[in-house]
Amino acid sequence: MSQIKNPLFLKALKGETVSRPPVWIMRQAGRYLPEFMVLKNKYDFFTRCQTPELAAEITMMPIKKIGVDAAILFSDILVIPQAMGVNVEMKNNFGPYIEFPIQSKSDVINLNTQNVEDHLNYVFEAIKLTKDALNNEIPLIGFAGSPWTILCYMVQGSGSRNFDKAKNFCFKNPELAQMLLSKITMITIEYLKLKIKAGVDAIQIFDSWGGVLSHSDYQLFSFPYIQQITAALNKTSPVIIYPKGCWHALSDYSKIGASAIGLDWTCSARNARYLTQNNVTLQGNFDPSRLFSSKKTIISQTKQMLNDFGKDKYIVNLGHGILPNTPVENVQAFVETIKNFN
Amino acid sequence: MSQIKNPLFLKALKGETVSRPPVWIMRQAGRYLPEFMVLKNKYDFFTRCQTPELAAEITMMPIKKIGVDAAILFSDILVIPQAMGVNVEMKNNFGPYIEFPIQSKSDVINLNTQNVEDHLNYVFEAIKLTKDALNNEIPLIGFAGSPWTILCYMVQGSGSRNFDKAKNFCFKNPELAQMLLSKITMITIEYLKLKIKAGVDAIQIFDSWGGVLSHSDYQLFSFPYIQQITAALNKTSPVIIYPKGCWHALSDYSKIGASAIGLDWTCSARNARYLTQNNVTLQGNFDPSRLFSSKKTIISQTKQMLNDFGKDKYIVNLGHGILPNTPVENVQAFVETIKNFN
Repeated sequence: MSQIKNPLFLKALKGETVSRPPVWIMRQAGRYLPEFMVLKNKYDFFTRCQTPELAAEITMMPIKKIGVDAAILFSDILVIPQAMGVNVEMKNNFGPYIEFPIQSKSDVINLNTQNVEDHLNYVFEAIKLTKDALNNEIPLIGFAGSPWTILCYMVQGSGSRNFDKAKNFCFKNPELAQMLLSKITMITIEYLKLKIKAGVDAIQIFDSWGGVLSHSDYQLFSFPYIQQITAALNKTSPVIIYPKGCWHALSDYSKIGASAIGLDWTCSARNARYLTQNNVTLQGNFDPSRLFSSKKTIISQTKQMLNDFGKDKYIVNLGHGILPNTPVENVQAFVETIKNFN
Repeated sequence: MSQIKNPLFLKALKGETVSRPPVWIMRQAGRYLPEFMVLKNKYDFFTRCQTPELAAEITMMPIKKIGVDAAILFSDILVIPQAMGVNVEMKNNFGPYIEFPIQSKSDVINLNTQNVEDHLNYVFEAIKLTKDALNNEIPLIGFAGSPWTILCYMVQGSGSRNFDKAKNFCFKNPELAQMLLSKITMITIEYLKLKIKAGVDAIQIFDSWGGVLSHSDYQLFSFPYIQQITAALNKTSPVIIYPKGCWHALSDYSKIGASAIGLDWTCSARNARYLTQNNVTLQGNFDPSRLFSSKKTIISQTKQMLNDFGKDKYIVNLGHGILPNTPVENVQAFVETIKNFN
């Protein structure tokens, strides 16, 4: 890692002082880039994920154009259910769809946790190609969904506002839910270890749907599994935990050896620093919708955010993935404001 | 109001000590009751809202069956856009749909704010019928959406996970958004005054989508309008504010003269009491999905919640509306646990 030329992101993850905070953007290699849309119209979603050359090409798209300080591999959290033997489709204008979601004990027992290296070989190949293309200019982030978030999709069978079916499954069969979460945790740890071996410089865990749980249910169904993954990895790689909507868990996450915690935009810098006792680097949290404001507003709100979080122990990002149709020039103004910060 | 036989709900709103906390349930007259489903299959959504006899009949359904301490008028927050001249449909398996959402300055200027009494006369008639049917046994709650939440639907044109179109509208045209919010606020105040005149004993303001905003945007686009409504009403009626997902606003809401603040299940009793400095009655916040647990679990978690919030300055409710297919006997076990609490 030490030979990476732009050290900002890895230094911020270590809590070291930096000249300015690093910046990257969730879904930075995505649906707001015209060159991405060309590929999107040519290849379906999982073809893009499963073809190492395409995944690497997409990963590289925003690097020069937007000028970010870290790359994140183009992939999807749902490659894990696929590796476990669940057929996940990505439907246009609908999102992920699973025809046969997990419903019974035998469904859980039958899930595969073996041969991750073979099943997800295309990911590790994409990492190697991307590392070659990056040429040590900036670090590469690999990621996985949290076990809770993966369970949400595996049981609900699609996206949802409240994941009511997934929650009902867990609340009716808590022991079966724990069994499923343990299996997902096991395969996720192996998957992420292989990603690190293939060359990623940091790991982010997306708990995109932790926010549908109460604090006490979060402690039962999400936190302990993310804690297990973090403990299994943090000796070999920095770990960033992104628990969207889980402000109540920030204090707990600041104490388990993660290098950073990602924040959504509902938690102010002041609250986040207070809740994490300045123990850990924070990442976030510009509202992606705010990139539709005027450039003047974007610049002034970005400056405000930089002042609120401070220069050190801070990685600039959005509070969630960048939205379709976000004007590229607005994203550039956002990044430029950060680079001019002092 | 003083002649209402069951005083628990109104006493709790005043912060007075009670023998046990009162209980009611958001959407208690709804889609989990078999007798409601019979009417639902017979009459479409707005026919049910707009026919006073039906609205009153539905409002009364859960009173004896569930044994709640307050009734809430069966109606919908989207009667306000309708009264403003926006055509709102309720589509099966889809939810609200507006063919011509608000997009331009002329759309905003053309919105009606006059003759609320005529446009929404059916609501006031339904209140009178319901008050007769209740016979002063328990109080009746009337409600409205917050201006921000109403704007979300009027601009987005439908439900949404993140109300991206509504947010983009506001962030691109903040002055136009303020104009729209002011018009909604004006008509909402008149509407709620007429509800109070027709006989409701308390008002709840639903800010169901405040949680999609950052704290600073919440202060621009939601809080001040709810503050205006509260100030206009709190001399004549208790006001309950339900800002779903807005834990960061709880402290502000505890200082503006509301009688109670409704909480979703992501905020623990301890955090809510801390954030509101015990200034105000709290309402909530059992996770509606938790009513799918075993009865044993429901009873023990309800007891835990009662212990966490304490007997006084507390109104028991769910953290959001009750879900379709919730077993009626589980709802009864929930209410029974509260009635046995001491």
